[in-house]
Amino acid sequence: MKGLKLASLDEKGRSQVKVGPVTFGEGFIIIAGPCSVESKEQMMETARSVKAAGADMLRGGAFKPRSSPYEFQGLGLDGLKILRHASNETGLPIVTEVVDPRDVIMVCEHADMLQIGTRNMNNFALLKEVGKTDKPVLLKRGMYATIEEWLNSAEYVLNEGSPGVVLCERGIKTHETYTRNTLDLSAVPAVRELSRLPIITDPSHGTGRASLIEPMCLASVASGADGIIVEVHAHPEDALSDRDQAIDPKQFSEIVGKVRSLREFMGKGSMKR
Amino acid sequence: MKGLKLASLDEKGRSQVKVGPVTFGEGFIIIAGPCSVESKEQMMETARSVKAAGADMLRGGAFKPRSSPYEFQGLGLDGLKILRHASNETGLPIVTEVVDPRDVIMVCEHADMLQIGTRNMNNFALLKEVGKTDKPVLLKRGMYATIEEWLNSAEYVLNEGSPGVVLCERGIKTHETYTRNTLDLSAVPAVRELSRLPIITDPSHGTGRASLIEPMCLASVASGADGIIVEVHAHPEDALSDRDQAIDPKQFSEIVGKVRSLREFMGKGSMKR
Amino acid sequence: MKGLKLASLDEKGRSQVKVGPVTFGEGFIIIAGPCSVESKEQMMETARSVKAAGADMLRGGAFKPRSSPYEFQGLGLDGLKILRHASNETGLPIVTEVVDPRDVIMVCEHADMLQIGTRNMNNFALLKEVGKTDKPVLLKRGMYATIEEWLNSAEYVLNEGSPGVVLCERGIKTHETYTRNTLDLSAVPAVRELSRLPIITDPSHGTGRASLIEPMCLASVASGADGIIVEVHAHPEDALSDRDQAIDPKQFSEIVGKVRSLREFMGKGSMKR
Amino acid sequence: MKGLKLASLDEKGRSQVKVGPVTFGEGFIIIAGPCSVESKEQMMETARSVKAAGADMLRGGAFKPRSSPYEFQGLGLDGLKILRHASNETGLPIVTEVVDPRDVIMVCEHADMLQIGTRNMNNFALLKEVGKTDKPVLLKRGMYATIEEWLNSAEYVLNEGSPGVVLCERGIKTHETYTRNTLDLSAVPAVRELSRLPIITDPSHGTGRASLIEPMCLASVASGADGIIVEVHAHPEDALSDRDQAIDPKQFSEIVGKVRSLREFMGKGSMKR
Repeated sequence: MKGLKLASLDEKGRSQVKVGPVTFGEGFIIIAGPCSVESKEQMMETARSVKAAGADMLRGGAFKPRSSPYEFQGLGLDGLKILRHASNETGLPIVTEVVDPRDVIMVCEHADMLQIGTRNMNNFALLKEVGKTDKPVLLKRGMYATIEEWLNSAEYVLNEGSPGVVLCERGIKTHETYTRNTLDLSAVPAVRELSRLPIITDPSHGTGRASLIEPMCLASVASGADGIIVEVHAHPEDALSDRDQAIDPKQFSEIVGKVRSLREFMGKGSMKR
Repeated sequence: MKGLKLASLDEKGRSQVKVGPVTFGEGFIIIAGPCSVESKEQMMETARSVKAAGADMLRGGAFKPRSSPYEFQGLGLDGLKILRHASNETGLPIVTEVVDPRDVIMVCEHADMLQIGTRNMNNFALLKEVGKTDKPVLLKRGMYATIEEWLNSAEYVLNEGSPGVVLCERGIKTHETYTRNTLDLSAVPAVRELSRLPIITDPSHGTGRASLIEPMCLASVASGADGIIVEVHAHPEDALSDRDQAIDPKQFSEIVGKVRSLREFMGKGSMKR
Repeated sequence: MKGLKLASLDEKGRSQVKVGPVTFGEGFIIIAGPCSVESKEQMMETARSVKAAGADMLRGGAFKPRSSPYEFQGLGLDGLKILRHASNETGLPIVTEVVDPRDVIMVCEHADMLQIGTRNMNNFALLKEVGKTDKPVLLKRGMYATIEEWLNSAEYVLNEGSPGVVLCERGIKTHETYTRNTLDLSAVPAVRELSRLPIITDPSHGTGRASLIEPMCLASVASGADGIIVEVHAHPEDALSDRDQAIDPKQFSEIVGKVRSLREFMGKGSMKR
Repeated sequence: MKGLKLASLDEKGRSQVKVGPVTFGEGFIIIAGPCSVESKEQMMETARSVKAAGADMLRGGAFKPRSSPYEFQGLGLDGLKILRHASNETGLPIVTEVVDPRDVIMVCEHADMLQIGTRNMNNFALLKEVGKTDKPVLLKRGMYATIEEWLNSAEYVLNEGSPGVVLCERGIKTHETYTRNTLDLSAVPAVRELSRLPIITDPSHGTGRASLIEPMCLASVASGADGIIVEVHAHPEDALSDRDQAIDPKQFSEIVGKVRSLREFMGKGSMKR
């Protein structure tokens, strides 16, 4: 694919990306947590419950890119500290979004993995900056990006010496309105035939509807994804953002069970690719 | 959902649609065959091989809607006769597309199920005409249709007294160019929470790439689909249309094996919905 | 452009299409009338007022393609008779939509020009049928069609011996929601460099907002269009369909004045192309 | 419109934005220059010729956001110095893009107006940073942004105390492929009924084809735009980027003549809005 060097699939084989005890590209990685860090209590409660349910890693937003300057923009540094605390207590590494190149160093001090959100996939200044750090990067697909543009954005990060990039299909904008975005699961096998990078999916943003998350998690496993990232909120009805797509710890726990079971089945006998 | 009466999910429960020995909405139905009927030999060879591989039903186009009047438009009535012959010999029922309300009676004489193609999902005169027959209808999603528009098109068919409609997600047009369309698998659980109608997927048109068909078939099963329709050509390299997305009987046979196995797994124990 | 023969721009020069006293491709043609024919009174009142305001031709729908079978589908044959009556009284030729190949002969008996609506641009059976008549065709662009697909649909009509096709840019579907569609004015000069066919625009459907119609009519003139088609209702607040985009006869009269004036200016001196 | 305070149209009336001798929102402003600053000679030659042709302001890119890290990224600071020099010699103010919040101060030292490019319309960190300076901002519409999102991005800039924002419609991504983007001219009157901010159009990026620029410039005037920005290259065939859409100084000069003439006509007598 045009422009790809470091992200392309070649004789070096598939890339593995390590984040503390977690290795993307090896098993099936489940990341969970709230959309935004809202308070220490909310984050800790959710962190404990997703850990209990079997999550491998925590997520949570401290910096939230919002369409209007008058909407909640996240807790910032306070949010990062809460995330660090949640990680330390649960032992799960954390991934969190960074939106400004000037914040990268600060975020690195608290996070284990840096997330580039969908609105920043083409923010090349930011891509270069996260690529210079020793933290691996979770690169969400731009909601209007082609797979080619997305892989080229990964190339920007890798070209700066980054220890690794994990791609995240999070849904693209289409004419459909019933779902918030359209989760493009064909991107999973497409990326796997074009690139050496691990790829996970985000059924929460990809559908925007709690009721569709479980089937899309299972379909992600069947499509060959290396993991999922799911929005879980201890009390979805109270969430400050993305309320319609948040599931509670009990629903999450059921999904984890089915996902692990399906993944095991997919790796056995004649199902193995 | 707005405008839905006969297609909506209500106390009557899920709809089952019978096509000869096949029942959509009961097991997992696999339809296979070439894009176009090109000759008796090609169709018979493909029909025998997909039957041997475990297909439940045959597909093949006798009337092809093409962007240019100067492109191959299908064999017409001769194609229908070939399809009938292939069905009689294999015992597999056939589904084929009808594109003109004036052809509906003729197509009914040869086919077991009438297909409304993606370009005709909004051809209301045609929808009404197929709805008046005693043949069930396979209604493909318009490549630019929302789920709401699609279900309303089903309503047009059912409102004329049709014995049944099966929906087929065949990919929607998006900005992505690596795939021919974007197979919207979230439409499967979405349709299932909105409508009583069975839904299958078309990973061949949905991706336009032979290499992506197997993972998308498996993901369709995991998403809860009631079946798949796959383009199989005895000699893909010679196909007159849709060459890039056709698979050969051997590849199809492997897919059938994995799909059946996965479907069985999905119906067992804790995986059951 | 791929597939074009009869519609392409070549040494034969620009096509002129005659509809009674009106010649598309010569002056600037203004078509006006209601979305749907609702009653004789409504149609006659609107017809007289748009004639007085300076329209060249009448429009009105007798067959309405609607997403739901339970919505108003038009008056059918009664609507056609009302349109004929309005044409006879005002002396303005009429254009009206046909949606079913089996209705083409009937519509030809009452209309001076046949309209193919946006949902039927790919209805090849219908395109062929209207192409066989002695009535010229107004071919609206599919709301998801590329210019190449649109011109190939014109080719379908012309290939049957049609006396002429006029293209109508009526807005394409995009992510924008403030307007109902996005009127693609660059299609006007694009079509003019690719094709010999006249092209007009439909700022009413193109924007879906009465307040935007005047500026888009003027921009259409400046872009080089051969005419416009505008939805006018004697009493927009009572319209059975497309209420938000209908203007009243007084607003229409002002637009005609400005449009004629601008067109004259564009044809003079250094502005001439 | 949701979220708008400072950018909304209210009793304070339309905003005027001053950039040196130029006032957006008063006359019709023509900005011209190359896509990228390639060398001092190229920039000076183009600057002199567009000045002679009647441009009001210069444009040129020193920082180029490109999909691949291996493509030409612009001359950076050297480019800014060349732009300053061209401005000083011609007396025309310059606008140039800034892509990194850390570069804002440096760019302010050389430019008269800061451009936010289409890929950065949602780069809120950058929007806030340019809003803190004393330079007015040219805010291009995101190629996938709705008008509402665009005006909210303007709100981000204005909320920081910016002296002014000028909006630039530069084409949105659609399914059409003949043009590079689809120039949404209905956005001009739409923005004028929603917002107090001046709005110009970019027919070069909007169409991506040199042959379509003149008609789209004229249509922009007729739609009510406050100006245009046009890519002009002294030798388009040698341009390092955007070659297909660059016009030469002679073509530009003809466009300026027609645009000024049309604008004058639109402001007179019955045409006046």
